[in-house]
Amino acid sequence: MLIPIGPVVVFGSSNFPLAFSVAGGDTASALATGNPVVVKAHSGHPGTSELVATAVSRAVKSSQMPPGVFSLVHGAGKVIGMQLVRHRFTKAVGFTGSRAGGRALFDAAAARPEPIPVFAEMSSLNPVFILPGALRERGDRIAEGLRGSISMGVGQFCTKPGLVFGIQSPELNQFRQSLARAVETVAPATMLHAGICSSYHEGLARASELSGVDMLGRSSAAADGGKTQAQSVVLQTDLANFRKHPELAEEVFGPFAVVISAGTISELEKAAEGLEGQLTATVHGTAEDLKQAASLLRMLERKAGRLIINGFPTGVEVCPSMNHGGPYPATTDVRFTSVGTAALYRFVRPVCYQDFPQDLLPEALQDKNPLGLRRMVNGKSEA
Amino acid sequence: MLIPIGPVVVFGSSNFPLAFSVAGGDTASALATGNPVVVKAHSGHPGTSELVATAVSRAVKSSQMPPGVFSLVHGAGKVIGMQLVRHRFTKAVGFTGSRAGGRALFDAAAARPEPIPVFAEMSSLNPVFILPGALRERGDRIAEGLRGSISMGVGQFCTKPGLVFGIQSPELNQFRQSLARAVETVAPATMLHAGICSSYHEGLARASELSGVDMLGRSSAAADGGKTQAQSVVLQTDLANFRKHPELAEEVFGPFAVVISAGTISELEKAAEGLEGQLTATVHGTAEDLKQAASLLRMLERKAGRLIINGFPTGVEVCPSMNHGGPYPATTDVRFTSVGTAALYRFVRPVCYQDFPQDLLPEALQDKNPLGLRRMVNGKSEA
Repeated sequence: MLIPIGPVVVFGSSNFPLAFSVAGGDTASALATGNPVVVKAHSGHPGTSELVATAVSRAVKSSQMPPGVFSLVHGAGKVIGMQLVRHRFTKAVGFTGSRAGGRALFDAAAARPEPIPVFAEMSSLNPVFILPGALRERGDRIAEGLRGSISMGVGQFCTKPGLVFGIQSPELNQFRQSLARAVETVAPATMLHAGICSSYHEGLARASELSGVDMLGRSSAAADGGKTQAQSVVLQTDLANFRKHPELAEEVFGPFAVVISAGTISELEKAAEGLEGQLTATVHGTAEDLKQAASLLRMLERKAGRLIINGFPTGVEVCPSMNHGGPYPATTDVRFTSVGTAALYRFVRPVCYQDFPQDLLPEALQDKNPLGLRRMVNGKSEA
Repeated sequence: MLIPIGPVVVFGSSNFPLAFSVAGGDTASALATGNPVVVKAHSGHPGTSELVATAVSRAVKSSQMPPGVFSLVHGAGKVIGMQLVRHRFTKAVGFTGSRAGGRALFDAAAARPEPIPVFAEMSSLNPVFILPGALRERGDRIAEGLRGSISMGVGQFCTKPGLVFGIQSPELNQFRQSLARAVETVAPATMLHAGICSSYHEGLARASELSGVDMLGRSSAAADGGKTQAQSVVLQTDLANFRKHPELAEEVFGPFAVVISAGTISELEKAAEGLEGQLTATVHGTAEDLKQAASLLRMLERKAGRLIINGFPTGVEVCPSMNHGGPYPATTDVRFTSVGTAALYRFVRPVCYQDFPQDLLPEALQDKNPLGLRRMVNGKSEA
């Protein structure tokens, strides 16, 4: 049977102060599987963190859970966070945040005398591939959908599409114009905190200055700097130039994407092959398009944890079939997800109880099955 | 659904030239889940490795699997092995062997630009705790069983018990005498190769020379050095002295154990708390003993991957309920097993296919379920 792995340290993400912070998916997964949790609050929302932690602590008390089962710690990630990861009682780590931050925690955990697992969800550009038939049939609608997917939540979803690939054609030109017009209508909006906003503007400036990268469209209204607002921005380039600038394949967190034109579908495949690991990859195509794209889909299967056809990657559902994970640097462990019921498996470990008398067995394993669980007995699944 | 993680590098163990080497559990797990496998042959049995690899290659051909699905590489582990682990195409590693070797591979894999999972099964002393009632009732039978468990396969099982704890009493004295007499009857036997044999004798010498550690019993017949034979040896000490010498809690690979006497059952618990991670932990006790030992059992649950009551840990069965794993340094990932059907999970990763047309879905996910799999659909398990 599976038992708790031991105390779990959770690093609250900055982009989801509720769903992925103090009482978010990592904490829920760890508590649900019986682990004590220590949350390192994100400095972007200390007050929200404190409010949520107080609610959790009250729930711990009123449900008579052991008092040490939940704690919140504030402080500098590089000092307090590292101490938490290195503490000998810590047995696993959940993290959502930047690539540099996640890698630093992963490295520290791997270098411990007793290494521990780190599930860090870090970085993804969520590439979208738009095939010719789909462009012809519904380029405008795809542009409208992309506008929403890029600018939703001021582009602060880990699943925001940051790269859009198409094959050079009059239809792609028209699509780009539609996308540009759509993005112009997006009102500048306030980002989660000043740090995210300034990182966004730095990333945007770096990408815009690259040779062969042109402005395609941006919010027509000016952003109010005093309110840490951001405009939505879409740049464009071609595949040859994209390859010359590996920086373009690094995540810019915010309402931003780059449209990249290729010559052929086999060039799209090569572009996919050159990508790092992703949380998601999306293909838009007609039935005819998709028949031609079998090897593109196979390549994307190796690159991403979730594949989407004719949709947009931004929304994430908490359900058994969800996979919010993927090859590095999307996460540090491609075998797990941080969203959906399977997220529980990050924080459990198997133990085998051999020849135990019935009264010493955990209830889950007793012959009379007092918990009424669906189990495997003598190698056969019970109905 | 789960798909192959990608090419897996397997390091054949020296102690199981068939069951855990070229075509052993790691290779079977990786191939069964659809991964190409590259085996690094153990230098202890290059000829056997080559024979088995030839058989596997013939099977690959006759079953029309892709030609690159299996390869065998000979060479120095520190050079060839490290290159295999660092190769950018390698996506996971399986290893059974020494703690130093496993840790070196783990560290190299964690330091890659794209870190990969390493399941290394490394080191375990498989502690056995014998409670007073069991000693009184059947001390002689336990001594006889331990003799077999310590000397089976010339002590070269990863599950060989290396530490035996009891509470000081006349019954423990009598048990020690029984164990000494039993071990004297064990005929010296040839170890798997000269390297294992010389390591065994070095470890034995180190432990024997420690202050307060006494000889309890050894094979009465002399070992034939020319045949790389080893005697079975059992030493004894008390808990205070065991704590003074942390070397005694390091695995000596071979037919060797240390019997340690404690003052009380709560001292046994503290001894358990001081142990590193183990593959197994065993308790012998009467029903009355076991009632007193609830907190010892809870402690052992935190220390080992398999708990055994009134049995011996040496035998390992390939079945769904088996867990051959445990906290570090038993393995580098407490969440997995290297024996039993769950060993497959080391080498797969989840992928979510969203809004795929039926004909592009993998067969396992198609609505009509052509493979007849037992699945979860819309959050409900199908019967």
